[in-house]
Amino acid sequence: MSARLHDPAHTARSSTARTSALLLDRLRERPPLVQCITNTVVTNFTANALLATGAAPAMVDIVGEAGAFARVANALLVNLGTPNPEQRDATREAVSAARDAGTPWVLDPVAIGALPLRTALAHELVAFGPAVIRGNASEIMALAGVGAGGRGVDAADGVEAAAGAAALLAERFGSVVAVSGPVDLVTDGVRTARLANGDALLTRVTGGGCALGAVIAAFVAAGDDVFDSTVAANLVYTVAAELAAEDASGPGSFAPRFLDALAAVDAVALVERARVTGSVDDLVDATAGARA
Amino acid sequence: MSARLHDPAHTARSSTARTSALLLDRLRERPPLVQCITNTVVTNFTANALLATGAAPAMVDIVGEAGAFARVANALLVNLGTPNPEQRDATREAVSAARDAGTPWVLDPVAIGALPLRTALAHELVAFGPAVIRGNASEIMALAGVGAGGRGVDAADGVEAAAGAAALLAERFGSVVAVSGPVDLVTDGVRTARLANGDALLTRVTGGGCALGAVIAAFVAAGDDVFDSTVAANLVYTVAAELAAEDASGPGSFAPRFLDALAAVDAVALVERARVTGSVDDLVDATAGARA
Amino acid sequence: MSARLHDPAHTARSSTARTSALLLDRLRERPPLVQCITNTVVTNFTANALLATGAAPAMVDIVGEAGAFARVANALLVNLGTPNPEQRDATREAVSAARDAGTPWVLDPVAIGALPLRTALAHELVAFGPAVIRGNASEIMALAGVGAGGRGVDAADGVEAAAGAAALLAERFGSVVAVSGPVDLVTDGVRTARLANGDALLTRVTGGGCALGAVIAAFVAAGDDVFDSTVAANLVYTVAAELAAEDASGPGSFAPRFLDALAAVDAVALVERARVTGSVDDLVDATAGARA
Repeated sequence: MSARLHDPAHTARSSTARTSALLLDRLRERPPLVQCITNTVVTNFTANALLATGAAPAMVDIVGEAGAFARVANALLVNLGTPNPEQRDATREAVSAARDAGTPWVLDPVAIGALPLRTALAHELVAFGPAVIRGNASEIMALAGVGAGGRGVDAADGVEAAAGAAALLAERFGSVVAVSGPVDLVTDGVRTARLANGDALLTRVTGGGCALGAVIAAFVAAGDDVFDSTVAANLVYTVAAELAAEDASGPGSFAPRFLDALAAVDAVALVERARVTGSVDDLVDATAGARA
Repeated sequence: MSARLHDPAHTARSSTARTSALLLDRLRERPPLVQCITNTVVTNFTANALLATGAAPAMVDIVGEAGAFARVANALLVNLGTPNPEQRDATREAVSAARDAGTPWVLDPVAIGALPLRTALAHELVAFGPAVIRGNASEIMALAGVGAGGRGVDAADGVEAAAGAAALLAERFGSVVAVSGPVDLVTDGVRTARLANGDALLTRVTGGGCALGAVIAAFVAAGDDVFDSTVAANLVYTVAAELAAEDASGPGSFAPRFLDALAAVDAVALVERARVTGSVDDLVDATAGARA
Repeated sequence: MSARLHDPAHTARSSTARTSALLLDRLRERPPLVQCITNTVVTNFTANALLATGAAPAMVDIVGEAGAFARVANALLVNLGTPNPEQRDATREAVSAARDAGTPWVLDPVAIGALPLRTALAHELVAFGPAVIRGNASEIMALAGVGAGGRGVDAADGVEAAAGAAALLAERFGSVVAVSGPVDLVTDGVRTARLANGDALLTRVTGGGCALGAVIAAFVAAGDDVFDSTVAANLVYTVAAELAAEDASGPGSFAPRFLDALAAVDAVALVERARVTGSVDDLVDATAGARA
């Protein structure tokens, strides 16, 4: 027991969990209005994930309204999953207004690298300084201009392979970068956190990653430090996935349980389950400790 | 017991419940074909709510088809949640054809007031005489041109604050107006009903209000009196929400249970649970009576 | 027992089930990348059905990307449920690229017959030689130019009424044709299979038919014989529906159970439950045998 109390990895873990729990409380007390410009596959799941967490979603994604709304929303998500021409222009309008009004926004560059239009759009948008960039390893590498994008990156070790690209993006655009994978990585170029929570079922529900982008936006609106907020969103989201997976019979029953868990997750669950450290080595140690 | 038999509020309640049950039977015997032009967030949930209730959904929302279909559909829903240019034109085509062909249609002016394009479109469309206008208090007030729209209206007392605006719209456009909130209000300018059924979980599932608009359209197609049909749709929908909430663990597990309940709700449940009156005072009395 | 061993219908049944189980294993071992251009109502359910079955969905449906992606995808689904102008052009681009690159594709001509734009588009696209055409009886008859399309076809006997139209399409375009109904029919013009598995709840979930089109695409990518793959997809899909219906309380609880069942269905369930024959007569015999 005393060994664990003096274990720096353990201390970091509980400190992160407690900060995250505070931010979750704040989000639920004053539900942030989160504007989403996102792909047609995941609009419903994304809105439900925001509602379950405690935020207020608004899918305002047309030219002539997206900019005006970005000025009053508490945060904005831009997800490039199905970027038709109207949405591309609405995205430009929204991101420009968000920058002017100081509305923090999250860029999720879905499937860039191989697909030309969204790749060009992502490079154009990122120059507007998103508070957070969230993607999987190959998307982060493609946005940073390293790696081929979507090819040759094994999901199992991809996140660490993208650590350099994440740091580069963080420095270049002043953004916090979140790389999703079996172990999530969050960095602002100076601080780095690794989160090993989650469950594979989350990858078998469409929108599992996309909705996380929206939840990150909600936490950024609720907090003062973008790095802490991004870590908190990742932790809340992946701990909820663990809770949901416990009694799910497959991907179909997992999804409603996950929304229930997002609504129910609390400080106790976060502190008990958090597997967060600054480095992969710490994480391996911490995990060993948790198992011992 | 004899006191309740002679209680006018109680009599109104069972009469409404029995009329609603009759309309529900008629809807299920001859499933109406309900055309939906609705927002991208809720298409799936809306179609499933219609199917569960017993109606046949058809999402025909493109220029060149929306008008032709509105001539043969039994009812039409126009929901302005994500009105991109194609959908705005399809809506104009459909509403014009619906008026010509005598197809009843429901207008759901989502989030008008603050957002310019949909506000202008709602004012343009309402002149085509929707059978029903459904919205929350701030939307109804914005459409009536009273209040700021979406600001300063507290959800708890908003519905009563919008009663005047609802009556004004009913008179001006010959529409039945349904205002959704903790207590729903339905008025045709002469008759007014208030329904206190429902559950807060319905507000934590995206599309909870939007799908009600579609179910109202289905009931209008199934009945002869638009006011009775609108009340019936509200009652069936909110009683189903109560049934679903009974064993839900959160918003995720509530949604499938709600669809199950829409498919299962029957006359017995409606008569037992209906909390419907003509005035707020009656409702308070009736609720007190039910509790006594 | 020995009677059943020598029953040709029984033998056909187990042979089909075993072939289907092999294809399902192959699909899960090497998840095919299935591009979907589909309607806004069912994108989410379709992606989740593909993920549950074991495939990898990608909804790439915009002009400028749809063609490039069709060259690298393992299969393509084109569903005409909500064909806005952008999607119509993206569909043309994708189908043309698919033909050039040899990517097999599935055409689902949703609601053609009565609606003009999609009817014209379906006739234009089918000339590009889809590997599979999937629809209900009235859609298949409308595409073949027989019958009025969507009118006068009773769901109960529609599939057999469309058998001639299916054979005609198969011959004209070199496609396998799958007609969905209480008994599904699959034909390549020479071979014909009838499948009596499934559950009526599948018709009360929106996208029940549309997602099958995507699962057919996944099986076509996984196999060498388009006819066998189409039969396998129908069998896996409808046996999963039976498993899901066993403990569902309605259409709402059926949907997540169906996704769980798609993920769990295996050779044992397929062999035990398959009700597949070459002719309706065989099927009646086989069913009688199974009941005896």
